Amino acid sequence: MKYEVEQKFAAPNAADVEQRVRSLGGEFSEPVEQVDRYFAHPVRDFAKTDEAFRIRRIGEENRITYKGPKLDATTKTRREIELPFASGATAAEDLSLLLNALGFQRVAEVHKHRRSARFTWRGFEVEAALDDVHRLGQFVELELSADDQSLDAARDCLAALENELGLVNPERRSYLELLLEQVV
Amino acid sequence: MKYEVEQKFAAPNAADVEQRVRSLGGEFSEPVEQVDRYFAHPVRDFAKTDEAFRIRRIGEENRITYKGPKLDATTKTRREIELPFASGATAAEDLSLLLNALGFQRVAEVHKHRRSARFTWRGFEVEAALDDVHRLGQFVELELSADDQSLDAARDCLAALENELGLVNPERRSYLELLLEQVV
Repeated sequence: MKYEVEQKFAAPNAADVEQRVRSLGGEFSEPVEQVDRYFAHPVRDFAKTDEAFRIRRIGEENRITYKGPKLDATTKTRREIELPFASGATAAEDLSLLLNALGFQRVAEVHKHRRSARFTWRGFEVEAALDDVHRLGQFVELELSADDQSLDAARDCLAALENELGLVNPERRSYLELLLEQVV
Repeated sequence: MKYEVEQKFAAPNAADVEQRVRSLGGEFSEPVEQVDRYFAHPVRDFAKTDEAFRIRRIGEENRITYKGPKLDATTKTRREIELPFASGATAAEDLSLLLNALGFQRVAEVHKHRRSARFTWRGFEVEAALDDVHRLGQFVELELSADDQSLDAARDCLAALENELGLVNPERRSYLELLLEQVV
């Protein structure tokens, strides 16, 4: 099974984090806009089951993503299945209509600009992202991919990297949860 | 809204139908293999709601398709939403896993070889398909696309075309239904 081992931090000090990532060999991309449309399941309450299901649009590119429940109490490690589908706004709308027909209701959209850097650290390919999230502010996300065999090592690697980058007080809530809490 | 206006016929006389379609300007393609994996909804009984949800594989190409209930008692006219997603066997398997995670269970697979011809008839673009369906035999499918405005005209066109091709006794059951009835 594939997992994403992930941690997120509010980052008012984004420039400092960027500098530290660069010193580890990570160069950040230009910002790309990501629009994540989240859906509610016809009978499951994803807020209770700690799952997520969304369409992500990155410019013309479209992806569908399922995230399983978080597997531990400290990181955001969870099963993730993501795959591309037909590109463009019409395809994204068609998939929304298809999901609606199956009983999935649109919950909310998260808009953000992301700059990301990939680098190898202690044997793992790491993705660091600097996110400017509409209505929520700036965050740093660190993400490693793992399978069943490498999961523990990936978690250790992530913890060490957080320390290296001076990141503390992880935010375990998703952007969607943070946004919905604002609305209430 | 987009509809497929469709009719299907068991066709022991496929060669005769092919000849008649050719006389209307339709040239049939070489056979392509289509594998349709159908899924059950987590809470709806699609057999009762007359819906269908599947992944279609045509070689390396993958599509996801939702079909709504049939809208009348004679043709197989129904709402259809179909779109491509990432190609290849791995992507098809990933989408199956994603659907499983959301509570959709695989029901059955329909394997067939299809030769198709497209031609214009009375102002409509028609697709005629000669299907050789594993365990079910030979069928002819006629299909037109329509929207709300052209739906009635498309139905009339289809009825006239059936007459032109000498096709009688339409089969309203889907291949999936026919296959599941065999199993019982």
